[in-house]
This record gives sequence, structure tokens and C-alpha cells, in this order.
Amino acid sequence: MAKPTLTVGLIGYQFMGKAHSNAYRQAGRFFDLPHEIRMKTICGRTEGAVAEAARTLGWEGYETDWRRVVDDPEIDVVDVSTSGDSHCEIAVAAAEAGKVVWCEKPIGNTLAEAERMAAAVRASGRPSAVFHNYRFAPAVALAKRLIDEGRIGRVYHFRAAYLQDWIADPAFPMVWRLEKSRTGSGALGDIGSHIVDLGRYLVGELEEVCGTMETFVKERPLAPSPGGAGPGAVGVVDVDDAVAWVARFEGGAMGTFEASRFARGRKNHNRFEVNGERGSLAFNLERMNELEFYDATEPEATHGFRLIQATDGSHPFAGRYWPVGHILGYEHTFVNLVAEASAALQEGRRMRPDMEDGLENQRVLDAVERSHLERAWVRVRGA
Amino acid sequence: MAKPTLTVGLIGYQFMGKAHSNAYRQAGRFFDLPHEIRMKTICGRTEGAVAEAARTLGWEGYETDWRRVVDDPEIDVVDVSTSGDSHCEIAVAAAEAGKVVWCEKPIGNTLAEAERMAAAVRASGRPSAVFHNYRFAPAVALAKRLIDEGRIGRVYHFRAAYLQDWIADPAFPMVWRLEKSRTGSGALGDIGSHIVDLGRYLVGELEEVCGTMETFVKERPLAPSPGGAGPGAVGVVDVDDAVAWVARFEGGAMGTFEASRFARGRKNHNRFEVNGERGSLAFNLERMNELEFYDATEPEATHGFRLIQATDGSHPFAGRYWPVGHILGYEHTFVNLVAEASAALQEGRRMRPDMEDGLENQRVLDAVERSHLERAWVRVRGA
Amino acid sequence: MAKPTLTVGLIGYQFMGKAHSNAYRQAGRFFDLPHEIRMKTICGRTEGAVAEAARTLGWEGYETDWRRVVDDPEIDVVDVSTSGDSHCEIAVAAAEAGKVVWCEKPIGNTLAEAERMAAAVRASGRPSAVFHNYRFAPAVALAKRLIDEGRIGRVYHFRAAYLQDWIADPAFPMVWRLEKSRTGSGALGDIGSHIVDLGRYLVGELEEVCGTMETFVKERPLAPSPGGAGPGAVGVVDVDDAVAWVARFEGGAMGTFEASRFARGRKNHNRFEVNGERGSLAFNLERMNELEFYDATEPEATHGFRLIQATDGSHPFAGRYWPVGHILGYEHTFVNLVAEASAALQEGRRMRPDMEDGLENQRVLDAVERSHLERAWVRVRGA
Amino acid sequence: MAKPTLTVGLIGYQFMGKAHSNAYRQAGRFFDLPHEIRMKTICGRTEGAVAEAARTLGWEGYETDWRRVVDDPEIDVVDVSTSGDSHCEIAVAAAEAGKVVWCEKPIGNTLAEAERMAAAVRASGRPSAVFHNYRFAPAVALAKRLIDEGRIGRVYHFRAAYLQDWIADPAFPMVWRLEKSRTGSGALGDIGSHIVDLGRYLVGELEEVCGTMETFVKERPLAPSPGGAGPGAVGVVDVDDAVAWVARFEGGAMGTFEASRFARGRKNHNRFEVNGERGSLAFNLERMNELEFYDATEPEATHGFRLIQATDGSHPFAGRYWPVGHILGYEHTFVNLVAEASAALQEGRRMRPDMEDGLENQRVLDAVERSHLERAWVRVRGA
Repeated sequence: MAKPTLTVGLIGYQFMGKAHSNAYRQAGRFFDLPHEIRMKTICGRTEGAVAEAARTLGWEGYETDWRRVVDDPEIDVVDVSTSGDSHCEIAVAAAEAGKVVWCEKPIGNTLAEAERMAAAVRASGRPSAVFHNYRFAPAVALAKRLIDEGRIGRVYHFRAAYLQDWIADPAFPMVWRLEKSRTGSGALGDIGSHIVDLGRYLVGELEEVCGTMETFVKERPLAPSPGGAGPGAVGVVDVDDAVAWVARFEGGAMGTFEASRFARGRKNHNRFEVNGERGSLAFNLERMNELEFYDATEPEATHGFRLIQATDGSHPFAGRYWPVGHILGYEHTFVNLVAEASAALQEGRRMRPDMEDGLENQRVLDAVERSHLERAWVRVRGA
Repeated sequence: MAKPTLTVGLIGYQFMGKAHSNAYRQAGRFFDLPHEIRMKTICGRTEGAVAEAARTLGWEGYETDWRRVVDDPEIDVVDVSTSGDSHCEIAVAAAEAGKVVWCEKPIGNTLAEAERMAAAVRASGRPSAVFHNYRFAPAVALAKRLIDEGRIGRVYHFRAAYLQDWIADPAFPMVWRLEKSRTGSGALGDIGSHIVDLGRYLVGELEEVCGTMETFVKERPLAPSPGGAGPGAVGVVDVDDAVAWVARFEGGAMGTFEASRFARGRKNHNRFEVNGERGSLAFNLERMNELEFYDATEPEATHGFRLIQATDGSHPFAGRYWPVGHILGYEHTFVNLVAEASAALQEGRRMRPDMEDGLENQRVLDAVERSHLERAWVRVRGA
Repeated sequence: MAKPTLTVGLIGYQFMGKAHSNAYRQAGRFFDLPHEIRMKTICGRTEGAVAEAARTLGWEGYETDWRRVVDDPEIDVVDVSTSGDSHCEIAVAAAEAGKVVWCEKPIGNTLAEAERMAAAVRASGRPSAVFHNYRFAPAVALAKRLIDEGRIGRVYHFRAAYLQDWIADPAFPMVWRLEKSRTGSGALGDIGSHIVDLGRYLVGELEEVCGTMETFVKERPLAPSPGGAGPGAVGVVDVDDAVAWVARFEGGAMGTFEASRFARGRKNHNRFEVNGERGSLAFNLERMNELEFYDATEPEATHGFRLIQATDGSHPFAGRYWPVGHILGYEHTFVNLVAEASAALQEGRRMRPDMEDGLENQRVLDAVERSHLERAWVRVRGA
Repeated sequence: MAKPTLTVGLIGYQFMGKAHSNAYRQAGRFFDLPHEIRMKTICGRTEGAVAEAARTLGWEGYETDWRRVVDDPEIDVVDVSTSGDSHCEIAVAAAEAGKVVWCEKPIGNTLAEAERMAAAVRASGRPSAVFHNYRFAPAVALAKRLIDEGRIGRVYHFRAAYLQDWIADPAFPMVWRLEKSRTGSGALGDIGSHIVDLGRYLVGELEEVCGTMETFVKERPLAPSPGGAGPGAVGVVDVDDAVAWVARFEGGAMGTFEASRFARGRKNHNRFEVNGERGSLAFNLERMNELEFYDATEPEATHGFRLIQATDGSHPFAGRYWPVGHILGYEHTFVNLVAEASAALQEGRRMRPDMEDGLENQRVLDAVERSHLERAWVRVRGA
């Protein structure tokens, strides 16, 4: 019996566009999806580039105006993977057109945007998804399973740091990710939102936060361009290079979070640790196939963090690919996410994370930023 | 201008068939290949299974008789990925039909087979490739580059161990990989051949070897089957569970090699270390995105093995995928290999490793086995 | 020519007493000290136990009243290693008696005590020392040297977590370290003070802090004792089980600090990382012979954290002991500290850390505690 | 009640002399020894140096002729820690004088010497000890305990490599450790003997071996000396720089051993791994407080090597020192050995390892060397 077709239109064709396209191409190769995924349209503003992307990434066709994607009656899912400043308009339009919205994170550039987006999706009655892809690393999903099984008991601590170094050199030029008007925030939204999601996924809702943000390098050279910046011209960085905050979870756990693009040598070091009454878990994205697990219920003499290679058939997602010990890469987190979104859609159950999760995430980001500006603790859900 | 098409027929559809198919699908998505790869035919003996594989893995069609693939005038490349007992017949036929032969390793079940295969390919005048895919992990290719640049100087030691544990349990049943008639040898050919290839790639030809082989569990339960084995029936394991040997390289380096399927906890632990006059290199497939490099020419106080994340644009292959720190997985080694084979083919240069490498590899395997039987050192290239 | 004698009286004979005694015995065996250290008197309130300690730990004699040590004209150095509630009285008396005061950390149970102690020492005109022993791990001293040499440039981040798990089990009984009247604070003073010292040593003074403290287990069983607690009796824990804070250093670096006794599996995990413009450094006390160093000034393709084994003659302290690769242990940090204190004393230069460092450290602890109570940022040096 | 005194005379005062002296000084500080150890005499040929050593290392007096130590009726234990060429004569004389002989490893420079030494000790009826100190690292003793408890079941593999790099530079000068007449062999006896001991301790007797030895740098500069070598003079290295062998244990396990001084970056990398039916163990001396343990009997999803910090009171020796997580160093292996030797002596039980173990060890070294010369497998205990 033929599977129903799920027709996707993807807005955005750069880094995330490439990752999402790969996921759409590959998901059905490894998972027995309920749908045939049809990659109909990719969309971007620069025709030559998007045409090339369509060809390279495997799309049937392309558009240069996202409204044509949203208006296309054949398209079931609109995937919003543009820079943050256009998320809100596109997602709201797609929701209003009755589309299933799958959206990159953070969903908006501001909390107000996120609220509008979530409201539109809610009003549409359609399911949604947000690309917090790291939930879908097998080791992370295994951590979740172990927590749900009570293997570490009551959680005392969640400790996360997402560290990169790509702009640590003051000579690195201005790019759109350093402009608040384009991206909303810097390290906070780009990578901090990932560790917020992991904290929410593994431990629960954050109650209050208090943090500090910093822009270490406040001016950067503009890339010379025809009719644009001349030699020596600089641009002002108006987003955070780094952010750190302490937090309290609703369940009483203490949280520490840090996100920085100024940690030399840390390339994609998204590390967390959860300490509970009965054990601990630790993960680092740079070794994303591994989960460290400490089980305090065992006899003392053989206590120790175990290095679990989360590549076994007994682990989430991993059995769909290769034999144990044959590792997966970054891109597979997106493949797994798409497989899960497809399954949730077909089965009529709520996809997690969805736009409500995206909104809650943005409440945390907003609270962190306010706590910095107000130099005070801020409750995530208002007074 | 349209690219020339490279039409592939793949014989075999199980583990390696899945990995190769993925490589054919993906290579052109990440590399600017000189060819359009056309996945025309996949071939296997069981029609239902191969038809399903064709659909899942992305082939236009399937066959159940490999001769139809070899005889298909549209097919340029015959990829031999069956169990070892059929490699020779297929590869020789394909070479004689003028096909480009790409072959899984070890190329034959015996040295005699390998010699026939290499001779046939040589006679065909066509290029070839062998799937020693680990050369194509970016970290391994980087190791090679550093050695070629003289960064570790004269090589003193090559030390490799490929350890797995999937049959360490005596209750694990008989499978074809434990039958000499199907597979030629056990750990030696399956995983030992990989470390032979890495030694040859990084250090050079082996001159002589002396080793020992062992079958720790000599009988295993047969899986009950209709009209076949009853309960309690056992099969005789006639291949090696483990093998270890010492070796001398032509350049004077000392080599130690070990391959085992009985190393509990080691899932796909393919580890090597190279020690040279000016530095050292170390790699472990379970963390295949990392290369350890020790540079002895630096001031003593800051000496130390560096953990290079071989995921940067400056590293081999890695720049085709994701930003630094976003890791690749096992499957990408095949994608890289296919991209390189396509490029070599188009440019008319020798692909490495090719069937001559496969033959030299088999000479080493054969010498190791003879050294075990004769309890003596054996020269790899005869007297 | 005979060396001058440095006569020591040690107040306290438990964990720290044992560690300090070892240091006094061993320092002259490995370092060419300017003094002969004479271990004259150890002091404790329980005669049988202190007499036994004197014998086991190598002291000439013992006292049960610390005033007799302070009053002993032969004694040059009074080492204050009791529980925190008696530090102030003893140290002030010793300073007033003209003794050199060497004191365990944190120097007082409150900032007021620390101020009195530092004032008394200042008034005495005598040098002093505080046992922030981790500065004297060779790897930490090497980190300091590399920073001073400019190898990591301007510091952006200091990130420290001192994690233990010895009271994570709610059934663990009340001990004096959980009573505020005895110990001043919990994780904050006991282990948090160590990371404050490391931050000050490596990066500089902290300007302001904002943190949160938690007591996860608020009542614990009292150990049954004759005439004391009966079965089922509980005591109230009135110190922090865990503390975390964000901070700003005077030089503009961002700091994150965490100290917890509730991190299952972390036994003595005192980890810090410093990220600077030109590189990074990382250390973990559980592997205290190793320093990780990332040098961003090298070519990109061989970038990576180096694992320096800080056991070489070119490293601080290490050359006094064993050949490279032969590791040191926890106790050697005290031996090195005593050797340095002896040298500084003889050469008339300021020992670091001394009581002024101890006071500054306590200012930070006090600011953290106030920030928790006031739910606000607190400046370390008042308005 | 006063403890009996155990009076020691130590022959040799360099690296091992320093390590043994430390052990004699420290053992009674941490262990409740059955003896008071009296450090009476240290002995060396160069009076000024040995007098200085006596003072620095804590001996009552010194001698320049070892016969005076052997003849001293007050001395109970003669500790033979000279270079290998004098072991035999001293140890035999000490045994014949009725002394307890404690001897550095390998006990002799040749098997013939070792046989004479063991025979003399046997004839004396006195107990003995050999300084294979690595058995006394808590992590190694824990490995032994886990094996004895059956935690890894039948042993399949023992894999050991002891790697250093101190002579990897061809410009490193001649020293006595490179002269066969002084030292018997090179890497084989110096560090290879340690891994032989670990293999025997953990797995059992070796049955047969086949190996290869190499001297990569055959001439080295002589250190210029008055009346001796002039500039440019070279000496001939006549011992092995590196050795590797395969082996069979009596119980059927396969062994691989390698010892090298030419492994750049490996400072004191004494690593072993034992793979058994039910689990595996791994150790590296550079992180000597850690033991890795894999338990295959646990559920698959939480399988993984555990990093045991062997610093807990539940681990061998560790409880005598500091709290969990406070690591020990190289020197403590000797302290533990002396404590065990003292206890065994008092209790009248056999010390392990003793001179019989030393002899068995030397049989293996001899067999490895013969296998190299004969290019053949050699049985350790003759035909």
C-alpha cells in the first residue's frame, strides 16, 4: 500500500538549509517513515544561489519569494530556516495558510515574535516542530530515557556550557550573526537556546534566572564590498559574545548555563552534566556518540562514570543505522528529528519540541536578557 | 555543461550494500563530483529482499543474477560487496567484461584468488578501487598528510589493534562470518585487513611477519531453522577469533598488530599509533573525528599530545560537510572514498587503494596465517 | 654551614594535620630548603589522639592547649589547621605573640574574623601563608606561568567547578562540616574558596558576583552517641550543600563558579578552564598531573588541546621529584607550598598566598553569600 | 608494646635509592606496620655523593663498600638497588649472610645470574622481595582483586605496552642503561620486565613467546669527560631500544607485549588491557589512580567502560592515605610494597613478588631474547 506523501517547502538554503535537506533526503533511507517525503520547493532570495542549492540538495524546484511556498496548495510542511528576522512573518503566514510549520530555533528574534508565532500555530490547529536537533542525538535521548526511568533519581544539578571560538579573533569580520536586527541576540539565542532546550528536556521548566552578558569585541572590520564598506571600515557588534547565568528549576534543581563564542579551542563543545540523588549523566556534543553515566547504587569499589557508546541497537535511533561502534555524525540528529516529526504527524500525537516548546525556550532567553539589563533575578513566567 | 554519467551496479545488499548505496546517494550532495552517479542496479540472490533493498536504498532496479549486472552495457562500475566466497568469480568476470571494478576487502578469500583478481583487473587496463574506507576518515587522511610532510620524521613504530566483542559470548550462534569456506578467515580478514591497510598507507610495505591465531570458542549453537538445525545442534568455528603478530616494515619500523572479536567493551576500537623521530600520531575509530598529534620539536614545557578535531576546512574532506566541530560518522568514510574514486577515474590517475593494494594486503594476511601455521617468521613477498 | 632551624607548632591533627605534617617531613627530602624544619609540637584537645598523632606523624611532642604552642618561645611558625571556628582566636594570638602564622583556608568563618586576623598579622609585621595548596600543583603553576608569559593573551573567561559527592546520600549523617557555627559555610568555604583562590591567582581580582546557594537535604540523622542523640534523632543542616555564581573580574573577564557536594561520581573534581584571546588552559584536580593547553597561534590544521604531563624537569616543582611521567599526588601540593613558604621567609619576600590573600578570598565568599541573601549583584570591595 | 625493629641497609642511592628511601621513611606514617623500620645504612661507591644521599634521604650512616652492609650483624634487610651488573654478587652474598634480600628488577643481568640469586635465597631459607612496584598501585591491585573474584571470567587477551621516549632523540648521549655489560638488556629488562610481571600477576604464567628486538640508534655521542671521550666520540649501543612479542599464557590467553624508549610523547605509558569472557580491565600508569572496568553482565543499554577512581577506602592501599579523589603518586607504589613486605615478613607468609617471581620473570625475558635471536617461538620453561 502506498504511503501518503508529505510535501515539504523549505525557506532558507544555507547551513540549516543544507542540514534540513539532507534530513529530508535521508530519513526514509534509514527509517520506515509513515510518509513518502517529497522535497518540492526550496526558497531563497538570490535566484542563482537557490537554483544551485535546489540541484545540489535534491529539491524538485525553487522559489525566490517565500509567499509562493506558503501559497502552494501542494505543500504540507513549511520549514522556516531563514535568519531570525524573517521567521515570524513567514511562520505566521504559513500557519494562517494552514500549513504544518517546522521552524529553526530560536523561533523568533524577540519574545513578542515568539508569542505571535505560537499563537498563530495554536490557532491553526496544526502540529508543529522546532529544530532543537540535539534532543535527537542517541546519547541525549538515552540520557532522557535513563532519567525517566529514575536511574539518577531526584535531580540536584544541571550544568551546561555551549562553547565555540569562531569569533574569538578580533580580526574576524562583521557577519549577520553579530547584528541584533538580523539575529535577535548573539551567543544567547544561537547556542544558548540549545542548552535551554536540553535543560527543559532533561530536567523541566526553569523558574528563575540571573545572568550576565558581554560583548568582548565591540567593533569588527566590515568585509569590503563594491559600493559598500571601504578598507578600514568597521561595524558595531550589538549582540552578546558570551552569556552566563544561574538558574532555579521548578523542581528545585540548581542550574548553571554558559554560552560563548570566545572559548579558544572549543569548536562545538556543547557539554552538559546532570547530577541526581542516585547518579549522574554527562554529554559533550564533540563526542556525541558517547554518554557518561554514573550509577551510585552500585557497590562502592566499582563505582565510576561509564562511557556508554550510544551506538547500539538498544539505544534510541542508533539501531536504524550501523552496527554498534560505528558512529553517527552531526547531520543524523536532523534525520532523527524529521523521522520523529513525520511519525508524530501521522500518529496524531504532539511532536516535541514544537512551537510551544519554542515559545517557552524564548521566555527563558528573554528572562536571561532582562536579568542582565536589570541586574536582578527574573522569573521566567512573569510575576 | 552536463557531467558524464557514471552508472553503477552493486552486487550485495546487506551491511556493505547499505553503506555503499548511501555513499553513491550522498557523494554528489557534498562533493562537486566530475560524474553524475547513476544507481542503476542492485543485485542479490533473494528477490524479495533485494527488491526491498532497491527501493529503500535508492536503486532504479535490481537483479538476482550478478551476471546480468556484469553483462549490462550501461553499467560502468561493478561494485563487489558480497561475502568473500563470491568476490573472485564476480570481480574476474567484471574485469573481463571491461568494467571498472570496485571491491570490498579483503578482495579474496585466499591469496590465490586475490592474485587472479588483480591479474584480471590488470589485464583489463581499467582502474579499480578497494573499500578500505578508513583511509578516508578525515583524521586518518590528516595523519597521512602530516607524515608525508615529515612532521613525525623517520618512523620507528606502528602499533595497531582492531578490537570488537560481538562474539565474545560463547552462546552467540554460528554465522557465515565464522565459516572459513564463506569468509576465508575470521578476525584476520575482516578487521585485521583494515589495520594492514592503515599500516601500508601510513608507513609502507611490510617485509616480514610472525603471528599467532586462536579460536577461543570452537563450537557454537546453530540457529534453529526449518528443515535445518534442531535444538542443541552446534557448528564448528573454523576461523580465527583473534590474531596478533609482530612485523618489520621495509623502512625498518617495528610493527605490532592485533585483531580480535573477543575484547569485551571494545565495539569498533580500531586504534593505531605511529611513533617517529620527531613526533607521534594516534587514532581510534570510535572517536574517528579526532587525531592525536605529538610534536617533539616544540619546547619541552609545552609538549603534549594534541587532540585535533579533524572537522575543520583545513582538514581532508571535512570542509565539504559542516562547520568545524560538527562531527562526521562512519558512513562518511565511504562517501569520501566514492568521491575520490570518481575523481581519480575522471582524471585518469591511479585510485588508492586499488586492486594492487588489495593484493598486497592479502599477501600480508596470507603471510600472517602461514607464520601461525609454520610457527615462524614469513616474508610477505616470498624468499 | 648549618642551616637555620625553623621550628613549627601545628594546631590540629586530623585530615589537614596529617597533610601538613607530611609536608613538613618531606619538604627537605626533595627541596634544598633554606631551613631545617623542626617539627616540635602538635596540638589537639583530645590527649590520647594527639599523642598518637604526634608519634605517627613525626612530631617531637604534643600539647592539648594551643596557648602553650603560641607561648612557646622556641616555636617560629604556628600552623592553624583546626576547624574554622577556632582559627581567628588562635591566629590573632599567634600573630600578637610575634609568630609567623600559616593558616588553613578559608582563614575565618566570617569576613569580620578574617579582617581581624589579617589586621593582627599586618600589625605583627611578620610574613604569613595560607594553605591554598592547589596553586602548588605543578600543572596549576605551569598554567600561571603560561598566562604570565602571555601565551593565552587577554582573558575572556574563567570557568570553575569544584564538585564532590560525599554527602549526596540523604542518609549521610550530620558532621561538623554541616554546622554553620563550626564551619562558617558549607561547600562555599570548604571547596568554593579553592576555586576563588585559583581565579584570583590566574586571572585577578573579582569585581562583583551574583549567586545562589542551596541546601538540598535540610535534616540529617545524628550519629547515636552515649548520653547524646538517640535513634531517629536528626540534626539541622544550616550550611549550603551547593553554591553557584556568575562574576566579573576587574580585567573584564567573565567568571562562572560552582561548588557542590551533591555531584554524584565527582570525587574531587576541581576543574577550571581559562579562555583567552590567544589560547586556553584547562585543569582537573582528579588528573592533577595534567594541563590542557590550546595555542590558537598555531596553524589551523594542527590546532588542538595538548595534554601536557606536567611532570617534567621544565615544569614548576616537578623536577625535584621523579623523572618525567612519574606522577605526583595530592600530598605533594602541600610539600611544594611548604618549600615555597620556607624560601619566601628566608629571602624576605612576600609569600603568596598569604593572609592578605586569605582576606581577599573571604571578601569574595562573603559577597557571594550576600548576593544570595539579597538576590542581587554584590561588589566584592563594597561600594 | 614496642614493635620489633627492622633494620635496613640499602645498596644504591640514585633513582631507585631515592624511591626506596622514601618508602622506608613513609611506610610507617601511613600504615600500622608490624615493624619499626630503621634506616641504618645507605651504600654507594662515591663517598661524597653517598654521604649527601644519607643526609638528604634520611639514613643514619653510609658505607662505600657493600660488603660492610652485608656483614653488619644489625642489618636485617639488604636492599639491592644498584645497576644490574652488581645485583648477583651482592644478593648472593647477602643471602649467604642470612639477610633478607629485597632486590630491584630485573633481578639479574642474565638468566644464569637470576638462577644463582634465587638459589642462594632459597638456600638461605629467608623470605625475599622484588621491587615490581606497579603491583602496588591501588588500581592494579584492584584489577587483580576483580579478576580473582571472577568479574571478567576466563581471560582471552592480555595486551601491554610500556612506552617511553627519553632516548628517541639520536643526539641523546650514551649512558650506562645503553650498555649491555652494565644493564643486561635495554627496554626489555628495564620496562619490559614490568609488563611481564603485570601479566604474570594478573593472568598467570607465560608458556611461550616469539618476539623481535631493535636498536634504532646504534651509536650515540659520548659525554665529553676529562681524560675520557673527546668531542665527536661515539659509543656503541648494544642493547635494544624496543622489543615486541606475542605470547601464549598457560591458561590459553593470548598475550601481546611491547616495550620501547622510542615512542615520542609517551613518558611513562605503562598500559595494559585484559579482556575476559565477562568483562575487561584497562590501566595506564600515567593515570595510575584510575582503573577502567567493563562489566559485560549488565544490561546492554548501559554497558560501558567505567572509570574507577581507585582512591577510595574500599580499594587496596588507598584508604591508608587521603579521602577519595585525592590522588596518590608514583612513589606510593614503593611505600605500599614496603608495607606489604614488612607485613608478610612478620606474618611468616610468602611475599609476592619475591625472588622466585624475579626468576620466573627473567625466564620470560630470556625467552624473548632467544626468540629474537633464533627467529622462532621459545618455550619459557624449556622443552
